Amino acid sequence: MISQENLTTTETFPITARNQVKRISKRGIYDRQTIYQILDEGLICQLGFVVDGQPFVIPTAYGRMGDRIYVHGSPASRMLRTLKQGVQVCLTVTLLDGLVVARSAFHHSMNYRSVVVFGMASLVDDASEKVEALKAFTEHIIPGRWSDTRQPTRQEIAGTLVLSLPLTEASAKVRTGSPHDDEADYSLPFWAGELPLRLIAAEPVSDPRLADGIELPTYIQKYSRGIRE
Amino acid sequence: MISQENLTTTETFPITARNQVKRISKRGIYDRQTIYQILDEGLICQLGFVVDGQPFVIPTAYGRMGDRIYVHGSPASRMLRTLKQGVQVCLTVTLLDGLVVARSAFHHSMNYRSVVVFGMASLVDDASEKVEALKAFTEHIIPGRWSDTRQPTRQEIAGTLVLSLPLTEASAKVRTGSPHDDEADYSLPFWAGELPLRLIAAEPVSDPRLADGIELPTYIQKYSRGIRE
Repeated sequence: MISQENLTTTETFPITARNQVKRISKRGIYDRQTIYQILDEGLICQLGFVVDGQPFVIPTAYGRMGDRIYVHGSPASRMLRTLKQGVQVCLTVTLLDGLVVARSAFHHSMNYRSVVVFGMASLVDDASEKVEALKAFTEHIIPGRWSDTRQPTRQEIAGTLVLSLPLTEASAKVRTGSPHDDEADYSLPFWAGELPLRLIAAEPVSDPRLADGIELPTYIQKYSRGIRE
Repeated sequence: MISQENLTTTETFPITARNQVKRISKRGIYDRQTIYQILDEGLICQLGFVVDGQPFVIPTAYGRMGDRIYVHGSPASRMLRTLKQGVQVCLTVTLLDGLVVARSAFHHSMNYRSVVVFGMASLVDDASEKVEALKAFTEHIIPGRWSDTRQPTRQEIAGTLVLSLPLTEASAKVRTGSPHDDEADYSLPFWAGELPLRLIAAEPVSDPRLADGIELPTYIQKYSRGIRE
């Protein structure tokens, strides 16, 4: 049975020793909605875990369903084999929004939205929760795709390891806007401002073996990442 | 004195227990040139380290100079204070190049180039190496900017912690091209192919307090990230 319960109904995450934003704490955000928007816009997370005292950070795709993040992969994956044992993980998602160009080298910065999640991942055993997670996963990356693709077979589901990480301890860090220069520097003859960066979809490339008569779906043609309304 | 020596002159990184690409090992690359191209194209790295058994992953900007990666920040930063003690770190840079849209949900994938670096960071004490590192840092993010900005003062240099991570143990993982579907699925009526993703610069936004008569520099106007020639 798929657990539909929310792990917590609080709208902000409690601040702990781990998730507290230390540097420039005014950029710290603990609001669940903001954090979920960042998670929903990102495509790749970075999963940090420890093996014999050694940190590993592995980029991987993910999906969110309610108050859980799902990652998946092959049962042969070192990362997933480690994580399913119930070890502490640190998951980050970073969206880079722009370069902040200050008059002084010292005050150059970046505009970004990042999320850090702490917790322990666990194996999703239940076949229907697994399928729901894979659906959330696919729809997270390409909204509209799940119903327009061959569904996973029983074998494929069995051959996929899915891990679930509860969203109970998380925080976001956000910087927006113009540079903050030293007052004396504002009159200097250097350009300053923000150079916004965007992740955009370029022209889709059809598979060379595409079957005849298949049109480009709208959800591919109009793919864009930005914030969902 | 600035150390100009190369830490190693080998053109490929030795494969170790840590940097070996385990999953889909044919995607593993140990060639220094490819790894440096990925590092030079990226803007943000993810720094993983361990504090009391707990993994932390922190996104941060970086620069490369020769066979070293530099990160910097405030002396008050928890991350930098931890790292300067000489702990093991895992640094990753991930470039997302596209979504791989397969006929089956199971074979969806992403095209990406990622680098993982293992090692121990050390504090850059020498003031001139620090300045060289900050220059590399700035030029890494905005080529052309260093000579068109107010240089750091002695105080700013003293108030910046710079750490250096030797590039001695690294690997890359790269996926390109079309989806790989099961043979039986190629005739299915679903669109398949690649949706390329690009990080582009949008219209620059001048600082509201920009001094009169300052033109937009060419290196901002023509900013693009792709692979440097």
